[in-house]
Amino acid sequence: MSILVVGSVAFDAIETPSGRRDRCLGGAATYFSLAASYFTPVRVIGVVGEDFGPEEEGVLTRRGIDTRGIERAPGKSFFWRGSYMQNLNEAQTLDTELNVFQSFSPKIPDVYRDSEYLFLANIDPVLQADVRSKMPHVKMVCGDTMNYWIKDHGENLARVLPHLDALLINDGEVKMLAKESNLVRAAQKVLAMGPKSLVVKHGEYGATAFFGDHSFGGKHKSGPFRAPALPLDAVVDPTGAGDSFAGGFFGYIASQPALTPAVFRRAMFYGSVMGSFAVERFGTERLQNLDKDEIEDRFALFRQLSHLD
Amino acid sequence: MSILVVGSVAFDAIETPSGRRDRCLGGAATYFSLAASYFTPVRVIGVVGEDFGPEEEGVLTRRGIDTRGIERAPGKSFFWRGSYMQNLNEAQTLDTELNVFQSFSPKIPDVYRDSEYLFLANIDPVLQADVRSKMPHVKMVCGDTMNYWIKDHGENLARVLPHLDALLINDGEVKMLAKESNLVRAAQKVLAMGPKSLVVKHGEYGATAFFGDHSFGGKHKSGPFRAPALPLDAVVDPTGAGDSFAGGFFGYIASQPALTPAVFRRAMFYGSVMGSFAVERFGTERLQNLDKDEIEDRFALFRQLSHLD
Repeated sequence: MSILVVGSVAFDAIETPSGRRDRCLGGAATYFSLAASYFTPVRVIGVVGEDFGPEEEGVLTRRGIDTRGIERAPGKSFFWRGSYMQNLNEAQTLDTELNVFQSFSPKIPDVYRDSEYLFLANIDPVLQADVRSKMPHVKMVCGDTMNYWIKDHGENLARVLPHLDALLINDGEVKMLAKESNLVRAAQKVLAMGPKSLVVKHGEYGATAFFGDHSFGGKHKSGPFRAPALPLDAVVDPTGAGDSFAGGFFGYIASQPALTPAVFRRAMFYGSVMGSFAVERFGTERLQNLDKDEIEDRFALFRQLSHLD
Repeated sequence: MSILVVGSVAFDAIETPSGRRDRCLGGAATYFSLAASYFTPVRVIGVVGEDFGPEEEGVLTRRGIDTRGIERAPGKSFFWRGSYMQNLNEAQTLDTELNVFQSFSPKIPDVYRDSEYLFLANIDPVLQADVRSKMPHVKMVCGDTMNYWIKDHGENLARVLPHLDALLINDGEVKMLAKESNLVRAAQKVLAMGPKSLVVKHGEYGATAFFGDHSFGGKHKSGPFRAPALPLDAVVDPTGAGDSFAGGFFGYIASQPALTPAVFRRAMFYGSVMGSFAVERFGTERLQNLDKDEIEDRFALFRQLSHLD
């Protein structure tokens, strides 16, 4: 079933111990879409500038991604420059130019209205709430956020959380949002803010899901679930790992007939699988040219990595 | 089968956000022995001072631990004072008094000679090598170490490593020992130093095992394995978590007829189980009063936490 994703489409300049790229296609919606495209049809809403040409669009359309919701605006696309020279686990932002993204006001094309799954990538929670309200009939909504919105736009974020079936967030962010340093207590506090479930990403240590009482329509009770990350001997570029995780995770869920605890668990593994591919090359390079066998082989590797038998 | 453990038996003064204890029985050999005692007979070699009385000895003997190898020396026992007020994941050492431990020279009682498993807890690698050489016929040897020995006693440590079937070490230490910041490459480098396998502990994120070609007598090839840690809503006192992990891990292995990849994996889970109990109370309190059912129930919880089906 189709996923509609709303988020940034951008150009990134990236420097890591493995090298540098002065301009590669990036943005949360880009990574998410590519990763999800291996599981289910994807439709994107975003805004780009005049520097976004057929080459960039081809990266998405070659994967069958519907780009009719990507608006063209006068000016330049969102640009981000980051470095991982100090720490491969945390980007140091050297420059952010919002450009056309500054006045982004998501418009939902009519042909997208029947999307059954909605992913609200990391954008202003006011926009997330707006899009959510315009898509009242979706089966499931997942959202991402970041420290910037938690710190300075907490009230707006609080209005989005009750509308999420799953909030994807990292370790530091969940603790910041809950004002609580223990992971489990932080997760409980954030669940009390409204999202039905929570996927907390731990970077190279994987991710843990926590479930509220209504996670599966009240039909199943589930304790936490932890998916490992793959121990990699070379992380070329960590950019987009979280969005690729989200794409694999939600793409798999959207491909299944119903959300059950078993589907959620497998989705966590597929999220980790797609995150592990993303970081093997600069930008979205690796996510552009995968095939189903590679994905299934890696899924099997995750199982071997974590299962007793 | 019996495990012989050589290591510290100490008194600790501990301060954590949950409270403080001015004097509780501690030391690596103590935590290890208690944790392992739920799986297999344990024999301890260590040294204590005149402050170690029947009450302390009773903590060990009540669990059936053989304390005949604990030497009494004039003076006071090893004393450590630590605080976790700043960071529950890392102790801040406020005071270390080696006392009788300063001149510790392990002696192996004749009645211990038939031990089939040997655990070299975190002590001077010169002493580890010495004990190892005096127990040439053991089936399996595991060892622990710490940053202090890695930094300033690297050559001595290098002489012990080839004699270990498994080295237990934490994230920071394996990277320090390998002079390599990537976990997988660090693990490969340390395996090249001689230990047959490596268990890298990630604190609240669990532990990852890496295997050399001879890990299972050359009979099995195995990729890495990651055991989760239990997400706990209250960590009362992290002291001894690593030694308790080691006790559960090695205790389970010693209870099994042969070391196979499946046994190693289950041992990692039992290690995590015992570590998760240890941190629920101050000192060794929780490890003194467990029963088999509690351990098996928690093992099942670890399986639910990490397994797809």
